[in-house]
Amino acid sequence: MTMYRLYYWPEIQGRGEFVRLALEDAGARYVDVARGRGGVDAMFRLMERHKVFAPPFLASGRLVLGQTANVLLYLGPRLGLAPKAEAGRLRVHELQLTIADWVVEVHDTHHPIASGLYYEQQRPAARRRTADFLAERLPKYLYHFEKTLKKQKYLTGRTACYADLSLFQMVAGLRYAFPNGMARLQRKYPRVVALHDRVAARPGVARYLASERRIPFNEMDIWRRYPALDRPAQVAK
Amino acid sequence: MTMYRLYYWPEIQGRGEFVRLALEDAGARYVDVARGRGGVDAMFRLMERHKVFAPPFLASGRLVLGQTANVLLYLGPRLGLAPKAEAGRLRVHELQLTIADWVVEVHDTHHPIASGLYYEQQRPAARRRTADFLAERLPKYLYHFEKTLKKQKYLTGRTACYADLSLFQMVAGLRYAFPNGMARLQRKYPRVVALHDRVAARPGVARYLASERRIPFNEMDIWRRYPALDRPAQVAK
Repeated sequence: MTMYRLYYWPEIQGRGEFVRLALEDAGARYVDVARGRGGVDAMFRLMERHKVFAPPFLASGRLVLGQTANVLLYLGPRLGLAPKAEAGRLRVHELQLTIADWVVEVHDTHHPIASGLYYEQQRPAARRRTADFLAERLPKYLYHFEKTLKKQKYLTGRTACYADLSLFQMVAGLRYAFPNGMARLQRKYPRVVALHDRVAARPGVARYLASERRIPFNEMDIWRRYPALDRPAQVAK
Repeated sequence: MTMYRLYYWPEIQGRGEFVRLALEDAGARYVDVARGRGGVDAMFRLMERHKVFAPPFLASGRLVLGQTANVLLYLGPRLGLAPKAEAGRLRVHELQLTIADWVVEVHDTHHPIASGLYYEQQRPAARRRTADFLAERLPKYLYHFEKTLKKQKYLTGRTACYADLSLFQMVAGLRYAFPNGMARLQRKYPRVVALHDRVAARPGVARYLASERRIPFNEMDIWRRYPALDRPAQVAK
């Protein structure tokens, strides 16, 4: 059985979580390198040597692969989380890339000006960007996946693919970050909610979520809970 | 010879341009559907039917594929613009996904708050975001590609891949949008500049750039020239 090495920041779920979920769901053997003895130094060394732009990245034997969606493109068929045929694989990847775009928009709700500044240094802009995100962008993404799930259990049919696991993660993260916003929105997207629950109940995922390997959501992550950005319904504007 | 149908907004280069450049470089047969008689209506109909999140998307026979990088993943080996072996194909795709992230950041320089608002409605935030982009993010991306080009003519070695064409496009677009910023920066990245020139001189690309098929850059596009965002060196801060 292949031993995968995942390199990602040790204190957040972040983009690494999309890869962790795939590995955990499949029961794959892997090391989350930067959470071990080598720490982030081992990660930085390999990034430099292999000219990787940013974490997460995956090593498998001599192959070193960057970009979350690219890692999943590689792992998908190997973990039984993507069809073997090209058309099916490309469709799953398309869905994953849409989730990747969505992740950037979630991040930018609290960092609309610069990722190098603190949230506190860009709060007014963050408030405006989040209002637009909750009113316009989030419904657009949720609607897209709701429509995709019409008449099928998973995003591409009867079996789960890595994009299903990622969609679970989006719902979990959004509920953490925007409990008020999501409470208002999610009843309009029952298939997305059902998909979240279905993925959470998969044996590998359920085991993982109950373990210490699942890092709790926190305010260094992509999904952050800032009450100023997520007002209760009445005062939302 | 396969006839490809590309669907994208007819009045901008945008993300569609990364696909157009690949098709043009390879001399592929294709129709830029929304620029023809069907207009954007044909595009919207197909998007709806195939549950595509956003343009551009490509149709080839019965296959309909969304997400720019995904379209290039499919076209790459078919157009001779990606290696056939898996490791090579994944490396090209990784570079393309980094360019995709970069494109979002370019767009958000003028639209940091909401893509549904006008630039004029988010000018102060745009100024701050652009200052950070030019000082921090743009050098980070340029440095990454400069390093990748060390000791080789193209991003993955001796032959061009679709990510090389996309890197050309980034330089061209950034020079349009930030003539002052790029004049200051680009001398530090001679390999990236040389790659731009090398791609521009490729027969298929040169023919395309001189044709009416190349839509001029404009202020509805991703790369926009707003003098308030791109000050001459002395007053830049």
